[in-house]
Amino acid sequence: MKFSIYSLFPELLSYYLNDGLLAKASDKGLVEFNIQDLRKFATDKFKHVDDRPYGGGSGMVIRVDIADKAIEEVKNDEIAPDEIILLSPSGERFNQKIAEELAQKKHICILSARYEGFDARVESLVSREISIGDYILMGGEIAALAIIEATARLVPNVIGDAVSHQQDSFSTGLLDYPSYTRPEDYKNLKVPEVLLTGHHAKIDAWRQEQALQRTKERRPDLLAKG
Amino acid sequence: MKFSIYSLFPELLSYYLNDGLLAKASDKGLVEFNIQDLRKFATDKFKHVDDRPYGGGSGMVIRVDIADKAIEEVKNDEIAPDEIILLSPSGERFNQKIAEELAQKKHICILSARYEGFDARVESLVSREISIGDYILMGGEIAALAIIEATARLVPNVIGDAVSHQQDSFSTGLLDYPSYTRPEDYKNLKVPEVLLTGHHAKIDAWRQEQALQRTKERRPDLLAKG
Repeated sequence: MKFSIYSLFPELLSYYLNDGLLAKASDKGLVEFNIQDLRKFATDKFKHVDDRPYGGGSGMVIRVDIADKAIEEVKNDEIAPDEIILLSPSGERFNQKIAEELAQKKHICILSARYEGFDARVESLVSREISIGDYILMGGEIAALAIIEATARLVPNVIGDAVSHQQDSFSTGLLDYPSYTRPEDYKNLKVPEVLLTGHHAKIDAWRQEQALQRTKERRPDLLAKG
Repeated sequence: MKFSIYSLFPELLSYYLNDGLLAKASDKGLVEFNIQDLRKFATDKFKHVDDRPYGGGSGMVIRVDIADKAIEEVKNDEIAPDEIILLSPSGERFNQKIAEELAQKKHICILSARYEGFDARVESLVSREISIGDYILMGGEIAALAIIEATARLVPNVIGDAVSHQQDSFSTGLLDYPSYTRPEDYKNLKVPEVLLTGHHAKIDAWRQEQALQRTKERRPDLLAKG
């Protein structure tokens, strides 16, 4: 699976993607990262890609022609992109279901902004707009990394254990059950006794009950959706 | 403002935090990043910090004694931490309001997990649990970066324009209005005429209407909350 990312700070992406599990997945050919600097589409020698907003106001806006050139380039890639995603706080909220959907694709392109974002006309040039949450970042780089990491880990063989995915929080519609490991007693904080019984049916039932209980207490909205 | 982050992959954090605007803010002394490797609290020569879950199941769980040692260390910092945050998909969902709240603090500690997360007993040792969204990452590093970036940009003087914060999406309870810049006409995609009039009252009214309209269409849940 290929990810193309267009950003004004490509090095912030490459630092992260060139280390750890994602780098290993890339070395194995399971995923490919194509990181591009939006400034390469600048038309002046100062490499400007932004300009002041029409109608006044603070901040700079990234030009539509710059984004269009990036989109043109990626559309001519040998693997045509299945999705061209604009990162924006106004986009649909990213979740595990979208990650699962994206993980089925061959090539995802992500456009990452800075400053006041892209010229709104870019919205008409992309296939979807995504936000990773209701908070404002300095730019789209962390959002791009979140989408890439959440998606890439669902690509077969990227992480060790396929079973593990199915038990993830949100995949089941519930939060995950609590996990415990040694020591059994730590400063009088104890592991729930059922987990020490070796009685698998009881343990499974307890875990299901815990997952449901935690979801009820912490995220009743997830149950309401179901 | 100080951020202490405990992680199994400290280099994934330091790459990002040592570049760009966050590095500049740190150079100016506006924010401070204290990145620590959880493995330093390991007690064996192989630097193990995790173990298999009680009751069976896939994945490894990070030990409560390891987290406790990290918490002990940070509590002895010269600036006592105001919050000790456990990153977890089961935590309260991070948003702009929480970022604004955290930006008022002097020292925030973030515990970032990998694998199946921390032993659930760690929940009783922290002041809050936070999730950046309803999706599963490979670990807490990107979540930590998202919280740090969203919070640090609200610290005075970290980004240029204080006015700009107040107009952010979510700060107003609405999504942001669309922005446009030159060219005025790009492949027949045109800037809305009102923005070219120079009539500030009309422009302000149009922007407010647009922000409301976009929120109604895309995120009616935000209006319901208000």
